[in-house]
Amino acid sequence: MAQNTAEKTPVTMLGLGAMGTALARAWLAAGHPLTVWNRNPARAEALAAEGAEVADTVAEAVAANTLIVVCLLDDDSVEEVLGGADLADRDVVNLTTGTPAQARARAGWARERGARYLDGGIMAVPPMIGVPEAGGYVFYSGSRELFERHQETLSVPVGTDYVGEDAGFAALHDVALLSAMYGMFAGAAHAFALIRKEDIDPTALAPLLADWLVAMAPAVHKTAEQLRSGDYTKGVVSNLAMQVAGTPTFLSTAEQQGVSPELLSPYFALMRRRLAEGSGEEDLTGVIDLLVNDRA
Amino acid sequence: MAQNTAEKTPVTMLGLGAMGTALARAWLAAGHPLTVWNRNPARAEALAAEGAEVADTVAEAVAANTLIVVCLLDDDSVEEVLGGADLADRDVVNLTTGTPAQARARAGWARERGARYLDGGIMAVPPMIGVPEAGGYVFYSGSRELFERHQETLSVPVGTDYVGEDAGFAALHDVALLSAMYGMFAGAAHAFALIRKEDIDPTALAPLLADWLVAMAPAVHKTAEQLRSGDYTKGVVSNLAMQVAGTPTFLSTAEQQGVSPELLSPYFALMRRRLAEGSGEEDLTGVIDLLVNDRA
Repeated sequence: MAQNTAEKTPVTMLGLGAMGTALARAWLAAGHPLTVWNRNPARAEALAAEGAEVADTVAEAVAANTLIVVCLLDDDSVEEVLGGADLADRDVVNLTTGTPAQARARAGWARERGARYLDGGIMAVPPMIGVPEAGGYVFYSGSRELFERHQETLSVPVGTDYVGEDAGFAALHDVALLSAMYGMFAGAAHAFALIRKEDIDPTALAPLLADWLVAMAPAVHKTAEQLRSGDYTKGVVSNLAMQVAGTPTFLSTAEQQGVSPELLSPYFALMRRRLAEGSGEEDLTGVIDLLVNDRA
Repeated sequence: MAQNTAEKTPVTMLGLGAMGTALARAWLAAGHPLTVWNRNPARAEALAAEGAEVADTVAEAVAANTLIVVCLLDDDSVEEVLGGADLADRDVVNLTTGTPAQARARAGWARERGARYLDGGIMAVPPMIGVPEAGGYVFYSGSRELFERHQETLSVPVGTDYVGEDAGFAALHDVALLSAMYGMFAGAAHAFALIRKEDIDPTALAPLLADWLVAMAPAVHKTAEQLRSGDYTKGVVSNLAMQVAGTPTFLSTAEQQGVSPELLSPYFALMRRRLAEGSGEEDLTGVIDLLVNDRA
């Protein structure tokens, strides 16, 4: 390779699925010495041709470098793959998708083994890795010291955002944002279903839909302010009573168009419940209170 | 008033709720002669002071001008208010919220009474009226001739988008976009609920959430292309099988955080149903097929 790799932090990458491979390739392209391991060694071959060292065993891969990046199928795979490895004095950065509880448990597990631990939640798909303008990034949480030590290296494939010492926070932020996205996709699915039987081209609806969602997304700022202040009537434009009064139009339209209301009705049901509690002057924010079980 | 109103189309406005008042005020400010009527005349007083003629009866208001803009509580109110009026040769622009079926029926009803008819679906809240940079607009459908004749006047308070001769299309577009918005709000509600018990400020999550939703909203373009082509595997990045495999992480996280999954699980259930039909290689688009009852 033409680049001088002497000053670049060497990385060990465990797991070469689509995401692990994309990350590995970005580090290689930036001149980081890279050792890779994958259960199925065939997936390492292309990377070997690009300059990666292929370790025959996990132990060998872990021994090769201090910085160990893990991107496996799930938390069980992390246990399986790293359970027998000597992690003493390693910097483990775990990008495997999981829950906050799994991340917290894994942080303790790593500490017991003498490793430092950073958990990551990837807000990107593989084609966005190594493409800064795609805007992808990784939430990190856990050891702040570890994050700061490796931030430059971690920033090579994709952006970084450190969200706290609690190792579970990266996963929590990841799940929160993706959950919101699925809600948006569910709403968009309902919208496309509504026009199915009409002479309306879905690609004519799409730009209207995208622009509208982009215009409405910033409403979450007001929601957050209301949550922080506890005053859900602050800055209300269409109050809950007005919005509940509008829901029959949505449900009747779905019925007229032969569309199941199952993706909309749970939210409307919560709006009605909150209204029945006497919160008609509020914004929609009170629905959030109904979702949280305060005894949990 | 300083402006020359001689060339401006005179407008009759029926209904002075928050939206009707905002529209009326924008036309007044632009120098359009305006006649207003409201069931409760007290709401017309401020507008009278700004130069509006206040009609004592609906008949008087309808007789005053050719262009009659209607913005009432609901479709039943339109029947009630205009049922006895002489609409012959009037240009009725109905901005009252309703379903596509109500709009179509109302178009026939107007035609029978010798009126031309345009239906509108308002994609704005009252504070956005008269504020072009706020980006609000109204979907119009029905008589294209009527739309073209009055487009300049209709564009005064807020933007316009004509979506077809079918009088129901404005309402359908309106409901489709607002449905998608409620889905997005439901997703955001789930996200805020997830962090409720953690030491995370909602106003710190909000910008991450808003940016993420804005970044993901354009995914509807790919969905629309897939719907048009019928090929739901085109351009897939994370296929349905992979996404279904990820759902337990979302549901477990909700459980760990004491959050009801009721706003997310209906979408996940449809994803699983579609996967069970053998569509694992597809995008999420097939969920839309499951929403539509093809016998309806």
